[in-house]
This record gives sequence, structure tokens and C-alpha cells, in this order.
Amino acid sequence: MSYFNNIGKINYEGPKSTNPYAFKFYNPEQKIGNQTMEEYLRFGVAYWHTFAMDGSDPFGAGTMVRSWDKFSEMDLAKARLEAAFELFEKLNVPFFCFHDVDIAPEGSNLKETNQNLDTIVSMMKDYMKDSKTKLLWNTANNFTNPRFVHGAASSNSADVFAYSAAKVKKGLEIGKELGSDNYVFWGGREGYETLLNTDMKLEMDNLGRFYHMAIDYAKEIGYDGQFLIEPKPKEPTTHQYDFDVATSFAFLQNYGLQNHFKFNIEANHATLAGHTFEHELRYARDINMLGSVDANQGDPLLGWDTDEFPADLYTATLAMYEIIKNGGLGRGGLNFDAKVRRGSFEPEDLFHAHIAGMDTYAIGLKVAQKLIDDKVLEDIVENRYKSYSEGIGLDIVSGKTDFRKLEDHALGLNEIKQESGRLEKIKATINRYLITYAAE
Amino acid sequence: MSYFNNIGKINYEGPKSTNPYAFKFYNPEQKIGNQTMEEYLRFGVAYWHTFAMDGSDPFGAGTMVRSWDKFSEMDLAKARLEAAFELFEKLNVPFFCFHDVDIAPEGSNLKETNQNLDTIVSMMKDYMKDSKTKLLWNTANNFTNPRFVHGAASSNSADVFAYSAAKVKKGLEIGKELGSDNYVFWGGREGYETLLNTDMKLEMDNLGRFYHMAIDYAKEIGYDGQFLIEPKPKEPTTHQYDFDVATSFAFLQNYGLQNHFKFNIEANHATLAGHTFEHELRYARDINMLGSVDANQGDPLLGWDTDEFPADLYTATLAMYEIIKNGGLGRGGLNFDAKVRRGSFEPEDLFHAHIAGMDTYAIGLKVAQKLIDDKVLEDIVENRYKSYSEGIGLDIVSGKTDFRKLEDHALGLNEIKQESGRLEKIKATINRYLITYAAE
Amino acid sequence: MSYFNNIGKINYEGPKSTNPYAFKFYNPEQKIGNQTMEEYLRFGVAYWHTFAMDGSDPFGAGTMVRSWDKFSEMDLAKARLEAAFELFEKLNVPFFCFHDVDIAPEGSNLKETNQNLDTIVSMMKDYMKDSKTKLLWNTANNFTNPRFVHGAASSNSADVFAYSAAKVKKGLEIGKELGSDNYVFWGGREGYETLLNTDMKLEMDNLGRFYHMAIDYAKEIGYDGQFLIEPKPKEPTTHQYDFDVATSFAFLQNYGLQNHFKFNIEANHATLAGHTFEHELRYARDINMLGSVDANQGDPLLGWDTDEFPADLYTATLAMYEIIKNGGLGRGGLNFDAKVRRGSFEPEDLFHAHIAGMDTYAIGLKVAQKLIDDKVLEDIVENRYKSYSEGIGLDIVSGKTDFRKLEDHALGLNEIKQESGRLEKIKATINRYLITYAAE
Amino acid sequence: MSYFNNIGKINYEGPKSTNPYAFKFYNPEQKIGNQTMEEYLRFGVAYWHTFAMDGSDPFGAGTMVRSWDKFSEMDLAKARLEAAFELFEKLNVPFFCFHDVDIAPEGSNLKETNQNLDTIVSMMKDYMKDSKTKLLWNTANNFTNPRFVHGAASSNSADVFAYSAAKVKKGLEIGKELGSDNYVFWGGREGYETLLNTDMKLEMDNLGRFYHMAIDYAKEIGYDGQFLIEPKPKEPTTHQYDFDVATSFAFLQNYGLQNHFKFNIEANHATLAGHTFEHELRYARDINMLGSVDANQGDPLLGWDTDEFPADLYTATLAMYEIIKNGGLGRGGLNFDAKVRRGSFEPEDLFHAHIAGMDTYAIGLKVAQKLIDDKVLEDIVENRYKSYSEGIGLDIVSGKTDFRKLEDHALGLNEIKQESGRLEKIKATINRYLITYAAE
Repeated sequence: MSYFNNIGKINYEGPKSTNPYAFKFYNPEQKIGNQTMEEYLRFGVAYWHTFAMDGSDPFGAGTMVRSWDKFSEMDLAKARLEAAFELFEKLNVPFFCFHDVDIAPEGSNLKETNQNLDTIVSMMKDYMKDSKTKLLWNTANNFTNPRFVHGAASSNSADVFAYSAAKVKKGLEIGKELGSDNYVFWGGREGYETLLNTDMKLEMDNLGRFYHMAIDYAKEIGYDGQFLIEPKPKEPTTHQYDFDVATSFAFLQNYGLQNHFKFNIEANHATLAGHTFEHELRYARDINMLGSVDANQGDPLLGWDTDEFPADLYTATLAMYEIIKNGGLGRGGLNFDAKVRRGSFEPEDLFHAHIAGMDTYAIGLKVAQKLIDDKVLEDIVENRYKSYSEGIGLDIVSGKTDFRKLEDHALGLNEIKQESGRLEKIKATINRYLITYAAE
Repeated sequence: MSYFNNIGKINYEGPKSTNPYAFKFYNPEQKIGNQTMEEYLRFGVAYWHTFAMDGSDPFGAGTMVRSWDKFSEMDLAKARLEAAFELFEKLNVPFFCFHDVDIAPEGSNLKETNQNLDTIVSMMKDYMKDSKTKLLWNTANNFTNPRFVHGAASSNSADVFAYSAAKVKKGLEIGKELGSDNYVFWGGREGYETLLNTDMKLEMDNLGRFYHMAIDYAKEIGYDGQFLIEPKPKEPTTHQYDFDVATSFAFLQNYGLQNHFKFNIEANHATLAGHTFEHELRYARDINMLGSVDANQGDPLLGWDTDEFPADLYTATLAMYEIIKNGGLGRGGLNFDAKVRRGSFEPEDLFHAHIAGMDTYAIGLKVAQKLIDDKVLEDIVENRYKSYSEGIGLDIVSGKTDFRKLEDHALGLNEIKQESGRLEKIKATINRYLITYAAE
Repeated sequence: MSYFNNIGKINYEGPKSTNPYAFKFYNPEQKIGNQTMEEYLRFGVAYWHTFAMDGSDPFGAGTMVRSWDKFSEMDLAKARLEAAFELFEKLNVPFFCFHDVDIAPEGSNLKETNQNLDTIVSMMKDYMKDSKTKLLWNTANNFTNPRFVHGAASSNSADVFAYSAAKVKKGLEIGKELGSDNYVFWGGREGYETLLNTDMKLEMDNLGRFYHMAIDYAKEIGYDGQFLIEPKPKEPTTHQYDFDVATSFAFLQNYGLQNHFKFNIEANHATLAGHTFEHELRYARDINMLGSVDANQGDPLLGWDTDEFPADLYTATLAMYEIIKNGGLGRGGLNFDAKVRRGSFEPEDLFHAHIAGMDTYAIGLKVAQKLIDDKVLEDIVENRYKSYSEGIGLDIVSGKTDFRKLEDHALGLNEIKQESGRLEKIKATINRYLITYAAE
Repeated sequence: MSYFNNIGKINYEGPKSTNPYAFKFYNPEQKIGNQTMEEYLRFGVAYWHTFAMDGSDPFGAGTMVRSWDKFSEMDLAKARLEAAFELFEKLNVPFFCFHDVDIAPEGSNLKETNQNLDTIVSMMKDYMKDSKTKLLWNTANNFTNPRFVHGAASSNSADVFAYSAAKVKKGLEIGKELGSDNYVFWGGREGYETLLNTDMKLEMDNLGRFYHMAIDYAKEIGYDGQFLIEPKPKEPTTHQYDFDVATSFAFLQNYGLQNHFKFNIEANHATLAGHTFEHELRYARDINMLGSVDANQGDPLLGWDTDEFPADLYTATLAMYEIIKNGGLGRGGLNFDAKVRRGSFEPEDLFHAHIAGMDTYAIGLKVAQKLIDDKVLEDIVENRYKSYSEGIGLDIVSGKTDFRKLEDHALGLNEIKQESGRLEKIKATINRYLITYAAE
């Protein structure tokens, strides 16, 4: 059976693609630097957006046309699973990601829910045996169910805390069972609606305790997936505790957790927090905590999480620049935490959208690698900061000076010679690289 | 001589005010809780906005009518000083704050600049002997001069780093000389215009080194003022390293500086970073780092730092709530980092604006204290989180549980009973307290 | 039967309230100026938020506890209707508002949908006979159903245009049947997701045609309700054609419709468009098109339509100022287009929220009327613009001058004397009025 | 004498460029469609940003290194003029634009100011005789001088209104003298700081009167330049009357001015108003009022007018798409209302920045023309709206139907067949065109 066989061939006439839904720019085998595209671009399909999202928005009902929606409950879960592996194969995509509730329906109590999960996980494991597609990360959805109305690990209800813990426990077990490379924590309800009724200190303390218990349990069962925090500033809550990378880093340090986590950084969450995507990546890279990426994009004129498929070549280039400089993403990857627009309701759109995203990042990779090969930005930076490689500058970075010596130096200065930052020229250079090397 | 004697009496007909420019709500001697208003509300006048700001904006020249502007250079500095202490006395305000360049002009080199500062600091010390008004904090302006075009302590130029250090060294000496309660670090150029030419890691490392040297030097000279970081997310740079309290806390922890600093939190900077003012105050209070406050306000529809005098009673109430819960601000205070609008160019407006700000915070103090006396929010919070005071909740906060025990608990749960957060009722209650207790 | 009888008495201890759910500040019989509070404050309950909204958000399922939700389809519609009139009576609220789909479920085709509507409308008419509560406005929901995915009157599908027309036709008939004072057009899908696939000119032309047909049909059937456009800038579409009052006024003029419409102005929509609520009200008042108000509020730090119950006393005061200066709202009113927070899921919260909103606007009315009685702003404005009442100013406003004469005048000018705008003093005055007159 | 001769050759190795500062993509003689690049891309240099801007910002003093700054007053004006025509020639740029105060200093009174202008205008006319560079537009700066603190044509002072009129009168005379193609009205102070002291109705009425007088005077003196309104939403005022194109169109219609004006649309102003640049261009095109363009760009994460040189190829492509569909800009052009960053303070940066901007728009032109040649978007739109070319759709657009007939049609409909909007595929197509055709 096929869920997508009535879709015509989608061929973007890419160079050497071997799959029927051909790309224009993405070529898995092509070497970029010392890795193939496929090794660098560990793309993942987001199970929720691609197989469970119906296209509803706060003012409208679902629009998506999905042939598996004729089923319900466990039958629906099984149909989605079948459709998922069909799409994975057709797109030749190496990874996927899910929340527990994406793959199996919740039962009338936790025991039933876990049984449902066991059934699907077992089937999924079988599918994975015959597939190249692996599990990039899994997680527990501790935000959709009404029980999480006041938070999960930061709920005012100890019962909800316990329930959240039980769900993450199960998630870690599933991660171990399916060999997921990472386990993600996105605290969709870990924040507050209003400070007026909130004990923020207790909630953050509890969040710290929760993470420590998760670490202990993973160790206990021998699950070695990388733990990832996914920051987001607001939505659904008015203010979320994992606002951005820096805020989450403050939290992790404050609770002694910084050696146990890296970050899963989403482009759209970055811009909602007032940062560029590359800023968040750079910050994480600088502190050696860049773990994985949610490759999507937002609309800078809209104030909510639009989770669009990535199509902006500038963003993709600068993101790949940070990723290459990071030595790649290690066990992390590029998860398309992106949904087709409500108006793109046909199954065919799922293919166009993923191909668009993969081509976008393939271009980003090629342009970024060329920028690095030519030391375009490296030479600029090296030249700009050269004053720290000798004299008083070297003393500063070597810790060999103090305010008295620095004052002496300053008293002896006449006009300080400085150079232009050349932003306009640099931007033009990026454009030239984009135009010239994207298609090579 | 008087710089303000042609201003008519400004009398808002407050209850028992003893100064000619009378308040409506602020009454220094009135007891609120166990302190007087004056003890709680350690108001400070910002020297720059009140005596040096000319009303220019990016599209317009200065408009302010200031009788001292007929002078120039050191004469201007002396006239401003005289005007300042006249205004301090007329407003009966206990504190003031300044940057080095506010009080004395820069000379043709650092030596001359420091001589200019010495002259004015000496005069200022004399004025302070005859005045009740003390120095809340001082700082170095390491952002206006073109030399800081690429940063100060985070400049790519080691010479600029040294120059910045020399200016802070002098600032610490001045702080000691004048007995300032705090020394503030606002990194107006400590950030970047673009990541494309920036070595963010080196810049942040250097910033960390700079702060350590500042701590060492203060210790060396015996200056015991409290060190304060003032976060701001952007402007003038595209992205500032001290984005908000959490970001700065991450930085301080990462460089082993967290025990040497508290925060100076500005209302307008909070909202520019996407937070409420009370969020930033709460965060700092929770980590025991709430040091001082820049009491101003922004315009939520404008994307730049408007630095308006505080007039919003909600914000003032919630800010004072956090401050009272913090046990007051200790050596910190409420600095009016606020400027009269460009259209409010008459000297009289300086009085209206400060009185408006002081009355606003006086109301905030009264309403907040009453809310606390009646345990309005405390009872709500205590009731909401009561599940953590016994059973599984107590185990959680006592560290006596783990994921296995929590799962056992969750498996035994039926529907989890939860209660409304009652936000609408709470907001109505705040309104009733505001209306009822502001004037009492 | 009662849907709310297990709610304890809610008594805010208002002065002379006659209903069991007593207000603190709202007193229907109290005279404000030459009208009673009830005459000025034509409050309306929004059927959708209060009886049909389940508390879901983009990341979470519904949370609301509503006893009528045990029913489904037409039984649910009837239960909601019964609950609605119980709440109207308990709150003593004079008006309500609805979309077609709020009151009756859609059938399997348009005919069935209309039959469902007929059934409920007939019952509603009976309820209204025994109730003081009248219909402020009704409208057609042309945005939720998937058929409106690409727009309604601006859809690319002529069938959808026709369907939309049929729904508005029915809406006008229902308005006539129930005697609604107004008919509202909110174009939730009248806009675009992207310009790349959009013929904006054709869509706006069609929107113009649609409105002309609506006017013709209302005239034909003798429905005399006031037609209202409700502007909103974005959400659900990326860009909506009725962005704000000015944009909609441009549209109405361009299509010769300006004499047939007034505006229904929502506070939250105003701020999403980058305006204050009072700006939108003032603009509409100045062009004599202020028709009705959606009295809610947004969160200035969030980028989506939060539709909170109004609690901000500044906004309510400035809104009522515009409304009083407008001579009231005529046939319009103050519809609470507001929903209790997702965390305020208990039935009791519906009462707290409406009472909070009504008290908020009662205070706003009292303070605004006092400001007007004392000519606080009027005197300021009269004095500021007095130069236009004589000499060259009078020539300007009388149309008796030209650029040559004005240049002659300017050539003769020395320094132009101007006065401060006194914003800080004015804001302090507003605070004093708020504190002093709210409770009187 | 040369102001730029110490700048090394700047050569981007463009194909056939004849000027020493060679472009990579811009080739004036290259035919695009039926015009040359130079005919389509009527680039203009902004006199203010390029010759008068010093790099100051609200927190910092000027940084720009400009050899003409050794002069002052009229000597400075003359030096700037000389430098300007040197740069125009070196960049081979066809147009420039200025405000009165950019080219000549204000005198101690209006008479002196006009004399200064006469001197410079006479010199400028001589320069223009020997230059290919013409005046795209001129305008009066009615916002910088403190007299405009409360507005210009919308000031509360009739004297200021008169002064503003005199300045525009002179501007129209200069436009006639120098043969400017357009005269621009940007109302930098035409708006309000607060509604609380503002008679918005009178101010807008006066603005209407002002424009009518300007039209009359231009007619009287025989100046035939096109009149352009330049919308901007806020900054420097809190709210500007010409918020965006739609708002300004509402104003123009309301005062009977719509046949006398077109729009000068700035990219950065568009995004500050919450619109894409292409939205503003499309709106203006649809109402046949697209006059000219300020080709710059903002930073979507910053809330103020950054006026950056255009470097975003998406924006340039979509802008040029609208301009080509408009049949070009007629007498309008592409003015670089853009300033080099404060950190780009060397004279060389002026060249890099203009070349970057010109190359950006050259690419935009090429890609947009190819998209149009291939009917990429045209085919999508034609297919999407085909239902309006027959049957009920044709009746709708022909005005041959009404609500009764439409309801009949709707009652006969079963499920309405709709198609995906294909946004993801369209975005990928744009990327392919950008990569493929930019360099051709």
C-alpha cells in the first residue's frame, strides 16, 4: 500500500540524484570539505508536523488532506507509521524525530498510554531494521494535554510533576530501545502566564531537580543519548524559563547541570527571542554546547512561531558556517521542525517543502564551506584583532596586566588608530559567494 | 545665583510636604511598613539626562532651554554642578548618579581629562558637604567617544581596552573619593554590529578579564561600593552582551564573577528585551542579585530606548512589590534614568517630571505594601503550591525521590485535580488596591 | 436548570448593586454626565469566547470546564443558549454578540446549516422576549471552516465568494429577525499568506463588490443595522486587508463605501497594528466613523491576539474619553471580545472576568467624565492651538492665504516663541484623576 | 583637487564596466527586457547620508572621516558640493537627492538661509552642466531645526506653519531651477508625541491645506515635478500621520488630493510599519500611485530606522518585480536613502556601500525580469483565479449578480474543490531563479 502514490514524480532536475523525488542542489554523495553532504546535513523529518498536524490555526479548523486520516486511534497511529517510512524512503532522509503523543494515542491512564507506546515502538523498530532512516531524537510531549495547564516539571501540582517525570522516564526508555542519538527537552509549559500567582523560584528549583533525576535515570538504564535543551522565549506561555541559549546556560550553571546538556537551537525561536539564528548558534558554539538544530524559519513581521520550512539562503549559509566551524553537529542533526502552510494542504506539498528545505541547506553548506576555504571571514577577524597578538594586547589576553599598567599605557597614547568594520563590503562579498558558489 | 528661580511655585498640594515644590503622594517621613518612604525610595537624579541632555534625536537638533548652556567647557561643567545642587535641594532628593563625561569635559588627552575630573570632583565634594544629597553611583562613559566605535572592553583594539580600563580605574577612584554606594557597568558598546567580523569568544573573554581587574583594583584601593551590571539587549549595538539579567548571570557564572556583582535593572531595558520590568526584578531577587533600579519607562509601541519618566502605576506597584520582598534595595536606589521629552524643553518640566516620577513610586510603594500586608498574592501562591508541602510533593522538594518512584505515583493517579489560576480575579484585585490605597 | 448554580456568590461589595454578582465600581443607575452608566456602557457578552471557546491554544488542547459540553450538536447549541441567558441575567448585562457558527452547528450543506440557524434563532428570539439583554451585533464566521482557507469574499474561488455571500445574506436576515443594532464584518481570511500567489487588486475589488451587494441586500429586506468594519492587521493571515482604521478608510473611500460603514475598533487589534487603542478611536471619531468597540486588551510583549479581558485603567479611561467626546457610541456598544485565560478554566472565572471588565470600564468612564468636566485636556489643547484663532493662523484655517503670503510672514519672523508640550505634567495629572475620582 | 584620490582602486571585476570603481553585476548598458539597466535602475545618491552624516547615534558622537569636514559653514557647503560631483562621476550614478539643509547652512534668519541656498544652487547648476548626474528629487528639511519641535505643517504654531510653507515654496523654486523630476514630502515631525495634548483633526486639516497650497504654487510657477508622499509610521514622532501607503492614501482621498501625488516608498519604513517592502510597492502599484523608491533596508530585529544600504537579494528581486510590472518608475528612481554604518567610517566605505547597493538591485532586476519572462508567478496567479473568468465568477467581477443569486449558487454546491497555494514550492522556485539567473 502507498499513501503517496498518486503524487506525480517531483523532479527538480538535480545533478545526480538517485531518488525519484529529485533535488536541485542536494546531492548526498557530494564531498564538501572532508565530509559528504549527507554526513554534514543530518536531516530529520519532524513526525508531528508531517504526519500529525492538521493545518488548524487559532481561527480555523484543519485543512490538511491526509489519506491516513480515515483511521482513528491505534489504527491511525499505525497508518501514520507506515506513511512515515514511505516518505522517509522517498525523500531518502536519514533521520526522524518524535514526541511520544505523535506516534501513539494517549490511553485513559498512564498504563494504557505506555502500552500504546510499546506497541508502536515495537513496530517502529521493525520498520527501522529495513530502513536507512534512524531516530535523531525523541521527547515527551508535556504540554498538549490539559493536565499541563499550569506547567509540567514546573507545575504547581506535585502530581503533574510526577506525571511529567513518568513520561520522560518512558521517553528515555524508548530512546534506548530505538537507539536515538539525542533526547530533547522543550519546556512548552515550563514558564508562567503571570508572575502574580507564580513562585518562580520554586518552579525553577523543581526544574533543576527534574533534570538531575533524568540524568540519573538515563545513566541507570544505560541510555547514552545526548541531552538537549531547546530554548524558546514565549508561546505558549507568556514567559518561558528557557528563553534563549544564554538564559538556559545561566540556569544550567546555577543548578550544576552544564556538563550534562547541549542545546537544540531552533531558528524561529531565536528570532522570537530577538536574536539572529546565527547568534544563538555562535553562543552555543563558543561555550561548546552546540548540539543540534531545528531547521525552520519564522516571519520577521509576525509575532508567533510560524515554523516555516527553511527557504532563506542567507540564514542557511550563516547557520552552516557556524556548524562547520563547530566541526559539524556530532550526534545532532538538522531537524525540519517545520510545517507546510495551512494553504498547502495537499500531500504533494510535503515533498516540495522538504525538498525546498534540503536544497536550502545544501546551498548553505556549499557557500559556507567556500567562504571558509577562502578564509573570507577568518582573514577579516584575524586582521581586526591582531592587536591582541602582541604588546599590551598580548598582556591582556595572557592575564599579565592590571588597571595600573593599562592606565600607564593609555596615558601614553595619542590618537588611537582604528579601521573600518567594512560591513557593507562584507555583505556584498557574501552575496557574491552566494550567487557564484551555490550551484557549483 | 539661581538657575531655576524664574520657575513659579509648583505645588501639587500634597499632604505634609515641606519643600516648595510639593508632591501629591510622596511624603518622605511617612512610615510604610517599618521604614519611611524616604528610606525605601532612595531616589536618584540622573546627571546626564537632567543637566547634559539637549533634547536632540536622530532627526532633530537640541531643543532644551537651559540657562547654564551659555557657558562652555569647564565653566559649563561648573555651572551644571551649581544647577544640579540647586535642583537636588529644591526636589529634596537624596541621591544622584553620573558618568565621568557628564560632570567634566574630556581634555585633549587622558591626563587632561583626569585633571578636569579632579577639579570638578573636588568642587562636588564641597557641595556634598552642605547637602543631604549623596552619590548613589558613578560610572565611566565608555560609549560616546568615537574611540569606542568598535567596543570598549570588548573592542578589537587593545589600546581601546587599555583606555577603557584607565577610565574605569579613575571612576573607581572617584567613587571612593565621593563615597558612592555603587559603581555601575553599562556596556553601551560591549556587543557587536555584526557577527560577520566579530570574534565573540575573545570579546567576552576580554570582558571577563576586565571585570576581574576592576574587582582587584577596587579591593586594592579600598573602594567598597557595590558593583552593578546594567543589562540592555540592543542599542546602540545590534546585539549587546549583557542582553538581560539571565544572560548577564550566565556570563558572570561562566567567568567566576557572580559573587562580585549585583544588577542595576532598568525598566525600559527590560521591555526592549521582551520582558516585563517585574520579571527582571524577580529573576534578580530569586538569585539574590537585585542591586539597584533605573526607574524609567519605555513605550511598548516603540522599538528604542525612550527613557521616559515613570508614570505607570501598575509597573511602579509591581516593581515596589519585588523591592519590598527583597527587603529593600540595600545600598541601591531608584535612579531616574529618564529624560523629559524633546517637546518638554522648559526648565519647569524638569520639576514636573521628577515629581511625577517620585509620586508614581510613592503610590507604587503604598499599594505594594498594602498588598503584602494583606497577603494578597502570598495567600494565592501558598495555596497554589501547597501540594509541595506534603506527600510526593514534599519528597520532590526534599530530594527524596526519583523517576521510578514518581512513575509509580503517576501510575496510581486518576484524574489530577487542578484549580484555576484566577488571573482575571487577581488583576481586578490589583485594580481595587490601586484605586483604594494609593491615596491613603 | 442552572449551569452556574454551583458557583458561590461573587460579591465585590459595590455600592448599590442589585444583582447577586455584585460589582465594586459599576453601578448601572449612577448618572455620569447626562446619562446613566448603563446608557453609556452598552456592555456586550461575546458568545464565542464565553460559551464556545474551549481554552485550546496552538500547543495545547482545551481546558475549560463547561457543564454544557456534555451535549453535542444541536443539543449543545440549545444548552449553550440556555446557559447564555442565565449568565446574561446574572451579570445584568444589556447586550450580546455572536457569529452564526457560535449559536448553531454547521450542517452537511448550506441548507442544513440555515435550518439549524433558524431553529436556534427562533429559540433565541423567545429568550429575548423575557430578557433585558439585546443583540448588539451579529456576524457570519467566514474564517473557521476549511473552505475559507484562501479567503472568503477575497478567495480565489468564486464558489467560496458565493458561499460567503450566502452566509452574510443569512446573517443580515438574522440581524433583522433579532433586531440587532449592528452587523459586523471582520475579514479573518480577507488578506493574503503571500503576495507571490496573490492578485491583490482583484481580491480587493471583489471585497468592494461584496460590500456593495451586502448594502443592497440589507436595504432590500429593510434591515437597518449599522454596518461595521473591524480592522485587524494580521493573524490569521500574514497580512489582512483591513489592517487598521486608516487602511480600511482608504479602502472604503476608494470603493465609494465610506457612507455606509462605521468601525468596530478592538483594543488588541489596535496594538497589534502598532497603534494605541485611543489612536484608533480618535481617528475614527475625527472622520465621524466611530461605531462600536471590542473592549479587550493584548499583551504588549506578545505578538498575537491574546484577547484578554480589559483590566488596564489607563486604556479604559482614554477609550471612554474618546467615546464621551464622540457623544457616546450611539447604536454601538462595548463588546467583551475577550476570553478567560487557558488557566482560568472554571465557570466562576467567567464571572470574575466580566465583572473585572465592567468595573474597569466603569472606572474609565468616571475618570474620563471628570477630566472632561474639568476641561483638563480641553484647556491644554485650546491654549496650545490658540495661534490659529487669529492673524495668520486664522487665515490658514480659513483658506485665505497662500505660499507667497506665508513666506512674507515667515520672512518677518524673528525667533518663534513656543511652549513646552508638558507631557510629564499631563501624565501626572491623569494619575491624580485616576486615583482620586475612580472610587467616587 | 580630489576628496577621494587616496582611495585605492575598487574593482569587483564586473563584466564590462567602464568606470574605475567597477561593479560585479551592474552593467549600465546591458539590456534587460526592453530597457537598459541604467534606464530601469535610476539610482540616486542621498546627499544627506553620503556628504552630511557624521556617524553619530543616540549614544555616540560622530565617527566619519571626511576630508571636507575641515571646512565650516558656506565653505563646507561648497566642499561637499565638489566632493559630491566627484563621487557621482566616479560611481557613474545618474541621480542625486537632497534636502535644503543638506546643501547649504541655515542663516540667522530665513532671508539669509535663502541667500545661502541661492549661492549653492547656482554653483550646483554649473556642476550639473558638466555632469550626467541629474536631480531625482529635492525636498525641504522641516524636522531638524528646533522650531519644528511640535510639527511643521501640523505644528500647533501658525508661525511654524508659515515658516514651513516658506521653506517648501523655496524648495519648489529650487526644483524648478535645477529641473528635479520629483518633489518629496516626508513629514518627519508631522505626527504627535501624545494624543493627550494634540488636536489631531486640526493638524490633519492643516496638512491638507498645506498640500493644496503647495500644488497651487507649483502650478503658478510652472514647476512640473511629480509630488511624492513618503510614508513612515513612527520615529521621530511617536505616531506619524503618513504611517504607510494605505494610511496616506486615506488622507489624500479625504482631502481631495489623490490625483496630485504618488508615493516615495522606503524599504525600511515599510518594515517599521509591519509590512514587507513589496506589500507597500504592490499597494501603490495597484492604485496607480507608485512613484519612486528609497532603496535601503532595515534590521528586522531592531525597532528603529537603520537605513542600511540594500544588500538583501530577495527584497531587491521582489521590489524590482513590482517596479517592472509597474512599467518602471517613470520619473521616479531608486534613491539610496542609506548610510554606511557608524563603524564603516572611512571614505572608501562610501564606494563599497553604493556599489553593493547597485549590484544588489542589478541582480534583483535580472532575476525579476527572468521570472516575468518565464511567467513564473503570472501563470500561478492566472491559474489560481481562473474561476473568475467564467460562470458565477465572471458574473461577480462583471457586477451581474447579487446576494440572492449567490445564495442560490451556494445552495447548489457540494464540496468546493480547492487547490494548494504551493507556497513552499514557489519559494524554492524563487531560490532557483536567484541562484541561476543572477550572474547571467
